[in-house]
Amino acid sequence: MLNFDFYSPVRLVFGRGSEAQIGELMKPLAKKVLLHYGGGSIKKNGLYDTVTASLKKNGVEFTELGGVKPNPRLSLVHEGIALCKKENVDLILAVGGGSTIDSAKAIAMGVYYDGDIWDVYEQKSPVDKALPVATILTIPAAGSESSGDTVITNEEKLLKYGYGSPHLRPVLSIMNPELFFTLPKEQLAYGVADMISHVFERYFTNTKNTDLTDGLCEVTLKTLIKNALIANKDMDDYNAWSELGFSGTVAHNGLLGMGREQDWACHEMEHELSAIYDVAHGAGLAVLTPGWMKYVYKENMNMFVQFAVNVMGVEGSYRDPESIILEGIARLREFFGKLGLPATLSGLGIGEDRLEEMAKKATHFAFGNEKPLGGLKKLYWQDVLEIYKLVK
Amino acid sequence: MLNFDFYSPVRLVFGRGSEAQIGELMKPLAKKVLLHYGGGSIKKNGLYDTVTASLKKNGVEFTELGGVKPNPRLSLVHEGIALCKKENVDLILAVGGGSTIDSAKAIAMGVYYDGDIWDVYEQKSPVDKALPVATILTIPAAGSESSGDTVITNEEKLLKYGYGSPHLRPVLSIMNPELFFTLPKEQLAYGVADMISHVFERYFTNTKNTDLTDGLCEVTLKTLIKNALIANKDMDDYNAWSELGFSGTVAHNGLLGMGREQDWACHEMEHELSAIYDVAHGAGLAVLTPGWMKYVYKENMNMFVQFAVNVMGVEGSYRDPESIILEGIARLREFFGKLGLPATLSGLGIGEDRLEEMAKKATHFAFGNEKPLGGLKKLYWQDVLEIYKLVK
Repeated sequence: MLNFDFYSPVRLVFGRGSEAQIGELMKPLAKKVLLHYGGGSIKKNGLYDTVTASLKKNGVEFTELGGVKPNPRLSLVHEGIALCKKENVDLILAVGGGSTIDSAKAIAMGVYYDGDIWDVYEQKSPVDKALPVATILTIPAAGSESSGDTVITNEEKLLKYGYGSPHLRPVLSIMNPELFFTLPKEQLAYGVADMISHVFERYFTNTKNTDLTDGLCEVTLKTLIKNALIANKDMDDYNAWSELGFSGTVAHNGLLGMGREQDWACHEMEHELSAIYDVAHGAGLAVLTPGWMKYVYKENMNMFVQFAVNVMGVEGSYRDPESIILEGIARLREFFGKLGLPATLSGLGIGEDRLEEMAKKATHFAFGNEKPLGGLKKLYWQDVLEIYKLVK
Repeated sequence: MLNFDFYSPVRLVFGRGSEAQIGELMKPLAKKVLLHYGGGSIKKNGLYDTVTASLKKNGVEFTELGGVKPNPRLSLVHEGIALCKKENVDLILAVGGGSTIDSAKAIAMGVYYDGDIWDVYEQKSPVDKALPVATILTIPAAGSESSGDTVITNEEKLLKYGYGSPHLRPVLSIMNPELFFTLPKEQLAYGVADMISHVFERYFTNTKNTDLTDGLCEVTLKTLIKNALIANKDMDDYNAWSELGFSGTVAHNGLLGMGREQDWACHEMEHELSAIYDVAHGAGLAVLTPGWMKYVYKENMNMFVQFAVNVMGVEGSYRDPESIILEGIARLREFFGKLGLPATLSGLGIGEDRLEEMAKKATHFAFGNEKPLGGLKKLYWQDVLEIYKLVK
C-alpha cells in the first residue's frame, strides 16, 4: 500500500424527498445562489419548482443560468462567471448531472481567476480558491457530486480537458433516487459505464498489498452490475437506483483509489472521442474499456484473473489464466451489450480517419510533449492507436 | 435502503513517516495546541520527540497533558478543560489510541460548555461547539480518529457513557502503521475485536436492499480477519498493519452504516463490563458478540446465513440454514481464540454476582427509564442477562 492523503468533506443527503430540504440546507451557506442547470427537463418534471420554492421559503436569493449541454462548453462557463460577478453570487447550486456540476465547478473557479479559466484546464495555472458548489443530482454517472474534478470542452479548439482540486469538492450533494426514474434508458447505460470505469481506473493497478481497496472496488463493481440490470428492466425501481446512485458517489470520492497507483488511460482516450465526435462519455468508455483490457492484460495477469473471478464470477482452471481473463472481458462486454451499449467505434459513428490524430492528442504527442497514459501499462500514442483499432 | 445524511470531513494522512508532517499540517490550523497523550510510551519510542520537534520547527506552540488511561477518566478531562482555558489552546492534538482521542474530544467540548461536561454524556444537554481535534493514531481499534464519538468513564459513578456529535469529528488524523509495530500482542487482539464489532454493529440489520453497504461491510470484515492473523504472527508486518489501520478507520467513519438500521447492543452491553471491571473493551466484545449472535440469530436467519457464507466462508446446504449460521459463529469464536481473546466472562475475571445489575444498567432499567438495546432484536434487561449468562 502506498502512502496517501484522503479528504472528502462532501455532505451527502440521500433519499426520498431530500431535494425539498435544499432551502433549509442552503440557508446557513449562502445568501445568493446561482441556480445552474441543463436543457430544461427540470422545469418539465417539477424539480425546478420544488427547488425554487424551497429557496424562497428559506429566504435564499437566487439568479439562474440554464443551458448546460452534455460535454459542457467553455462558452457557457464564461457566461456564468460574468453573471456570478455581476450578481454577487456566493454559492453555485448545480441541479443536473455531471455536465452541469462540472460547468458549475468551472464557474466557481473562474469567479476568482484573473484570466481565461481555460488556462487552468491546460495546466498553465493552478487555482487555490473557488466559490462553494452544491448539487442536486439528476443523473448518477460522473461522480462529480463527490469529486474535486471537472471536465470542460473547449468547443473552439475541439479539446476536452479535466482539472482536479480539493477546492472543487461540493460542500453538499443531495441525491433522491426517485429523480432518476424519468431518465431515458440510454442515460442509465451511459451512467453505469462511467461509474464502472471510475472504479476500474482505480482498481487495475500494479500496486500490491491492497486488500481493503481491492475488495471495496469489487463490491462496488458487483453492486453496479447487478442493479444496472434490474433498473434496465424496471426504470422505476427505487432500490436499484439507490444502489446505483450511492455506488456512483463511492466510486468517485477517492476512497477506492487510496494507497494504489491508478490508471485513467480509458478516460483520457475517451475524452478525445467526446471532444471531436461529441459522443456520450459512457458510451465511449463502454467501447474502449474491453479493448484496453485486451491490449494490457498481459502486463499483470494476476490482476485480471482477480477481476474475472471476483467481479465477473468466472470459474475455471487457474492453470489457464488467459482463458479466465478473456472470459471475464467477454462477460463485461456482454453486460454492456445487455444495457444497449455499442461495442465498436463504428457503432458510435466514428470512422477510422482521425484515430491517429486522437491518439496523438490523447498522449499530448500532438503538442510536442508526449506523456504516456495509464498506470498499469504506460501507453504511448502508438499503443493508443492500437487500442482504437482493436475496437474500430 | 433508508434515507441518510453522511458527512465525514476527516482528512486522513496515511503512511510511513507521516507523523513527521504534523507541524506543517498544524500550522494553518492552530497557534497553540494541547498535546494530549497516555502513559508515556510515546516518550520511550521517540514519537513525542518527533511530534514536538515538528511543532517547534513550524512555530506551533503547545502545552501538554499526559496520563490518559484505558477507559479514559472524567477527572483527567476536567483537568484538560481547565488547562485549555488557562493556556488559550485552540486545537487539541491527541497522540495515542481511542482512549486518548476520546478524552481529547471530551476536553474539546468542555472548553465551551458551561457546567460539568458529564451532563452531555448523560444526555442532559447537547453541545453545538467544540475545539478542533487532530490525532496521531498509535493503536488501531476504536475508530475514534474518524468518528464523531467519544466514550468516557465516570470513575466515581462507575458509569461508562458515549456521546456523538458531528462537531467531534477530528479535522485531521495521521496514521503511520509503523507506529503499531511495538504494540503488545494483546492490543492487536483487542483492537481487531473492536474494529470488527464496529462493522458488526452496522452490518447486522433488518433493513433490506442494502447491497452496497452489505458488501462494504463484508470486505472490511474479511480484510480485518485476514490481516489480524498475519500481524499476530509477525508484529512488524507493515502491510498487515496498513490494512488493519485503514480498515479500522473505514469501519467507524459512518459510511458502512448508511441507509441501514444499526444495532450497537454488543457495545452497550460491553460498556457495563468495562465500567465496573475495567476490562479491555475489545476483550469484552470478543466474549459478548458470539453470545449475542446465538441469542438473536433466529430473528433474522437470512442475515446470519449471509454472514456465515460471505464473511466466514461457510459452505453447506442452504436447506439447513441453522447449521450454516452456527458454523459461522463457531468460526468467529475460533478466530478470536487464535488471537488469544477469552471466550467467557470468567476468562475476563468477571463472576456472576453483578450480571443482573449490569443488565439493568445497560438497558437503563436501573435508572427507571428502560430503553431496550439493539436494532436487529430489541433487548430488554432480561434478554441482556440471558446473553451475559450464555457466555458466563
